Amino acid sequence: MSSTSTAESTTTHPAWDALTTAFQEATLIGSAAGVLHWDQETKMPPEGIEPRGMQLAVLARLAHEKLTCEETGNLIAECEGIAELVDDEASDTAVTIRRIRHDYDRATCIPGELVGEEAMLASQSQHHWAEARRDADFLQFEPWLTKVVDLLRRKAECFGWADDGEPWDALAEDYEPGCTAAWVESVFTPLRTRLQDLLHRVMGSSTPPSNAFNELVLPVDRQEAFVRDVASSIGFDFRRGRLDVSTHPFCSGFHPKDVRITTRFHENNVNDALGSTMHECGHAIYEQGLCQDHAGLPLGRAVSLGIHESQSRLWENQVGRSRQFWQWCFPKLGEYFGDAAGSLDLDAVYGGANIVRPDFIRVEADEATYNMHIMIRFEIERALLKGDLEVCDVPAVWAEKYRDYLGIEVPNDAKGCLQDIHWSMVSMGYFPTYTLGNLYSAQFFDAAKREIPGLEDGFARGEFEPLRVWLNENIHQQGCRYLPPKLCEVVTGAPLCSDFLLDYLEGKYSEIYGL
Amino acid sequence: MSSTSTAESTTTHPAWDALTTAFQEATLIGSAAGVLHWDQETKMPPEGIEPRGMQLAVLARLAHEKLTCEETGNLIAECEGIAELVDDEASDTAVTIRRIRHDYDRATCIPGELVGEEAMLASQSQHHWAEARRDADFLQFEPWLTKVVDLLRRKAECFGWADDGEPWDALAEDYEPGCTAAWVESVFTPLRTRLQDLLHRVMGSSTPPSNAFNELVLPVDRQEAFVRDVASSIGFDFRRGRLDVSTHPFCSGFHPKDVRITTRFHENNVNDALGSTMHECGHAIYEQGLCQDHAGLPLGRAVSLGIHESQSRLWENQVGRSRQFWQWCFPKLGEYFGDAAGSLDLDAVYGGANIVRPDFIRVEADEATYNMHIMIRFEIERALLKGDLEVCDVPAVWAEKYRDYLGIEVPNDAKGCLQDIHWSMVSMGYFPTYTLGNLYSAQFFDAAKREIPGLEDGFARGEFEPLRVWLNENIHQQGCRYLPPKLCEVVTGAPLCSDFLLDYLEGKYSEIYGL
Repeated sequence: MSSTSTAESTTTHPAWDALTTAFQEATLIGSAAGVLHWDQETKMPPEGIEPRGMQLAVLARLAHEKLTCEETGNLIAECEGIAELVDDEASDTAVTIRRIRHDYDRATCIPGELVGEEAMLASQSQHHWAEARRDADFLQFEPWLTKVVDLLRRKAECFGWADDGEPWDALAEDYEPGCTAAWVESVFTPLRTRLQDLLHRVMGSSTPPSNAFNELVLPVDRQEAFVRDVASSIGFDFRRGRLDVSTHPFCSGFHPKDVRITTRFHENNVNDALGSTMHECGHAIYEQGLCQDHAGLPLGRAVSLGIHESQSRLWENQVGRSRQFWQWCFPKLGEYFGDAAGSLDLDAVYGGANIVRPDFIRVEADEATYNMHIMIRFEIERALLKGDLEVCDVPAVWAEKYRDYLGIEVPNDAKGCLQDIHWSMVSMGYFPTYTLGNLYSAQFFDAAKREIPGLEDGFARGEFEPLRVWLNENIHQQGCRYLPPKLCEVVTGAPLCSDFLLDYLEGKYSEIYGL
Repeated sequence: MSSTSTAESTTTHPAWDALTTAFQEATLIGSAAGVLHWDQETKMPPEGIEPRGMQLAVLARLAHEKLTCEETGNLIAECEGIAELVDDEASDTAVTIRRIRHDYDRATCIPGELVGEEAMLASQSQHHWAEARRDADFLQFEPWLTKVVDLLRRKAECFGWADDGEPWDALAEDYEPGCTAAWVESVFTPLRTRLQDLLHRVMGSSTPPSNAFNELVLPVDRQEAFVRDVASSIGFDFRRGRLDVSTHPFCSGFHPKDVRITTRFHENNVNDALGSTMHECGHAIYEQGLCQDHAGLPLGRAVSLGIHESQSRLWENQVGRSRQFWQWCFPKLGEYFGDAAGSLDLDAVYGGANIVRPDFIRVEADEATYNMHIMIRFEIERALLKGDLEVCDVPAVWAEKYRDYLGIEVPNDAKGCLQDIHWSMVSMGYFPTYTLGNLYSAQFFDAAKREIPGLEDGFARGEFEPLRVWLNENIHQQGCRYLPPKLCEVVTGAPLCSDFLLDYLEGKYSEIYGL
């Protein structure tokens, strides 16, 4: 907890010590709240929700007070004036002070009333969203989404945006620092064109893979033993983490020494259990790999949701849906499930793990169609915030885009614009981080392949350590040192570009679908 | 969280509202820490201990600051001056303000340096105690126990004690408000005399019960299903709680809506699993039964460790070791364990659950000998604090008292004066609450029998609800309204007296041992 735990332990300015201690304390309160959130999703008895809400409200307020109090503001200003700390812009101290300044300014430029209003609206709006989704009736949610858009526009005004920017940019900053709508558009547009073409060819294939792997019925307890084995093999450290079950899989990192993931099991979907587990392992390996010398400080935390998602997608897809991974993993099916999995061969399993099938639901989408779901949400929320789209027109625009991008007819609002919780949580600017994660994962993996000879061949022998170490050194240990686009350039030598993901998908589907 | 949640919601003095809000907030921070403690004992991955320690240290400091800050002190003083709040001494507001004043004074009269010194000593001393116990060598622990006694005497000086009191009284106040060594002695002395006589007769019995019940080997997963059934039947509400496994069973109550217990399982000791579960259920039924209108305030919390222990002992012993309980529970053995438990009859099980056997280890002791272990510890810690006993003489005095009270020769320090963790945690004044709990449980149960016709006969039919409701109304819902001795008089019509426990034990053992 003391500032002597940072890498530059020779720095002994009292203001620096006090600032880092205060910031670490705010982080610790936040991580305590994280344990309570994890408990709520995995262990808490049903009626515990009321006291849990009160505990979390107090902790959130205490952490916010610690970060935004006058003393912290003064310490930041004092540190910014100490030449030894900030003159070398690339030094740990200078980077740390800049990121703390950024967090402080973000947290203090929203008036307290707006924070309260947002919390209240989120609570009410989620409730009405859940009812509207149950009834598949957008009209019930429309007045709440109108309030959400109104509040988010006011919030964006508080943050402000660049002269050539727009309101969406101000909100995305919380999830993907430095990200703007214009930049996202410039990355997404070429992606959409080539993806649509690829999807068209995949759906027209006369030799699609067998779906038999996804129809296996396998006991849940054996599935759990199986995914634990895989998690451990790819590098999730159970001495510094846990695996539990929850409805929606997630990862909670409280500290590199305590990182917990959840997954889910269905008798007839081992592919989902494995994919979910490897996805959350990717998040967890990032969190377990953060620099402990900077624990509680910006250099010891994940830089953005997009980079986080790149790690989960990389292990889920580039690794977990590769032929070489299945060369190693296929015998385990026999080991864990015996005859129940005995009739399939490696090709059937590898093909089954890579089935493409356009559908309505984002969270069930395959690698190829997933990004289309994201583009649709991004375009709609951007237009809502700009004032180019009325809330009442959302269902029609949604249906039109699903027809256009995925060639499917949305049957109702529950399977359409009411399927995701995000907007009801008063959150916009979040969705693109999923696709950015896919793009970063492909570009990172391409760089890793260039730098680690025989990387994929190693997977066939269960050798995942070289990849984990490479990701650790290049990405995890960097913390918040670089903004995501800069990190991408430093690690891969090029700005983010959709070609890497497209080349990867086209190569894989050409083989599997015989394109 | 707002003061409108208290029973007297018409009271709207701003000072009262602010005081109760601040106190509830300190309680919420403490209960969040409680969740982290529970997690540490049951779920946390091994390496999580370091960040967990830092989280808990921050939360402890924040809760302490909230309780002891100048603003809280001023609010207490202001409330004490508002006639409407305090003139009726028995009113909820007056009781609440008195108990908050008590907590505030206790928390503020210890200098910060002493608090820090105590935390440091506890950490070091526990470490050396564990090593000394491993080596069965008191000499290794002696210098640390010397430091502990020295610090506790200084701490007692800070609190102070009555003219006719002594240092032990000042420390016991944290565990058993209003308890003094002289009073404990006045209760324990007649208990010891009659207990020794009873033990002598039990050990001389020519018709002791069979021990076969304690030699059954039963699968752990079936034991768990069995104790969950019993826990639910006696009134533990799983919608507001959980049951997990830990090395040392415990109960954590964060709020009446979230109370968690643990138990332990050994293949060859179902009696221990059942007893531990019913014991912790007793604690939990108390916590789940606290008054929710006063949540986070003194009238919504347990009054003392002794009263808490009375609830656990009552369900474990007066209920769980009664013939009527086993009339109901005996068929469940067949239901859960089939033939593995099939050869025993009701008498063998009931007798086996009530075996008396003097031994060295407190936590494994039976109902009859348990209190002897406590008396020995009480007498020793009292003498240490008074200066009547030197630390170096503890092992000799320990051995002498075990010879005298229980007729056994202590084989070594590990099975002697090093067996308990309490003193190494810089804690004295705690032990007697265990025996006070036994005494209160017998006296409460006697009153319940008088007031609920056919109480014990109901157990044979699985009817535990009348007892739970009686305990809830008479004890749980009272919170901290009365100090424990007064609560005993209000509930039973008499001051605490060891006759109730002795009559109960003599009656039971006369039957089982044919005295």
